[in-house]
Amino acid sequence: MTKGAIFMSNTVITIGRQFGSGGREIGKKLSEKLEIPFYDKELLTIAAKESGISEELFETNDEKPTSSLLYSLSTNPYGVGGYSAMTDMPLNNKLFLAQFEAVQKLAQQGSCIIVGRCADYALRNHPQAINVFIHADLEARVKRLMRTEKLTEPQAKEQALKIDKKRASYYNSYTGKKWGNIDSYHLTVDSGVVGIDGAVKIIEDFAALRASYQGAI
Amino acid sequence: MTKGAIFMSNTVITIGRQFGSGGREIGKKLSEKLEIPFYDKELLTIAAKESGISEELFETNDEKPTSSLLYSLSTNPYGVGGYSAMTDMPLNNKLFLAQFEAVQKLAQQGSCIIVGRCADYALRNHPQAINVFIHADLEARVKRLMRTEKLTEPQAKEQALKIDKKRASYYNSYTGKKWGNIDSYHLTVDSGVVGIDGAVKIIEDFAALRASYQGAI
Repeated sequence: MTKGAIFMSNTVITIGRQFGSGGREIGKKLSEKLEIPFYDKELLTIAAKESGISEELFETNDEKPTSSLLYSLSTNPYGVGGYSAMTDMPLNNKLFLAQFEAVQKLAQQGSCIIVGRCADYALRNHPQAINVFIHADLEARVKRLMRTEKLTEPQAKEQALKIDKKRASYYNSYTGKKWGNIDSYHLTVDSGVVGIDGAVKIIEDFAALRASYQGAI
Repeated sequence: MTKGAIFMSNTVITIGRQFGSGGREIGKKLSEKLEIPFYDKELLTIAAKESGISEELFETNDEKPTSSLLYSLSTNPYGVGGYSAMTDMPLNNKLFLAQFEAVQKLAQQGSCIIVGRCADYALRNHPQAINVFIHADLEARVKRLMRTEKLTEPQAKEQALKIDKKRASYYNSYTGKKWGNIDSYHLTVDSGVVGIDGAVKIIEDFAALRASYQGAI
């Protein structure tokens, strides 16, 4: 493959994030800057349509963890990719697998940025995917949530801790890995010290460096 | 404070790293690029001289963990900064505290890059310090170690796992935190996908962004 061909290849970026760190806004701004599609809730819609499960169910079951997916997978002869055949599987597991497949399809189709949904795990074997995690200290996140969600300080703090606990539980139960663990990401950025635009710039630089890098360490 | 004054302020960067990830080389190259001093083993020398403990002891006790530092600290009326008065403290704890103080002094004196030595913890209250962690997947690190340390593949793998275990144990016992945990770092980079020069560039960009950033997320 020539260098030109590598530059022309897809840019696939997954973003995990602590609640209130601005991860979603960073993904959105990055998608505008790079002119590639962004998926968050939209991804649910695609997965819902493709799997034939109603969109409404996707909304109400959004990121609800389950502990029985690994059991379900081990008993499913079709493996990941055959969720539509899993008639005995609990609904939230079907939803997860439908999203899981949607992420993989999107990444095959072309460049994209995907926020949340264990996308780093779905794309763990993708040769070019860049897995990013955005975090910030609790104080900075609380300040942001007070502004963006119109919450009091105690409400913002409670929300931040509660939603991160939910995200960790969802991620850990489906992937068998630990949410926010360094080894799952190519790049992690504390948005509290460089801001939203700073984080966008760092991810952009990283993606360009990765696309042109072919050596070893 | 004017923007100019902020740009003129010190650049203090700490680098933690998995063995074989190129973290030390990244720190060294970054120090050349930014024209600011680099400390690794040199730091031991300074700490040794300032504490009056012989340099030889520093070398042999380098990064040997202890589980009794917190006890020692709790019984020391002088706290961190009074290690020379701690006649009853185990030698490795004295060494750690001497290094700990040396890191703090260096960061007060001016710009610097410090690799290892729990420097991120020593500077956790420093208003401008940038804490970086460099990692890469085991396969990439083993390849690098085979080349740089002239090891066979099994030797390189054994070394990588053994030394990281030692580093984690040293860091965890002295800081009460978990080595390589995302929350301790402002930036983590997988050097395996962007290379040494790529990682240097990302840290450089991040430092410039942080120096000029004054807002909230």
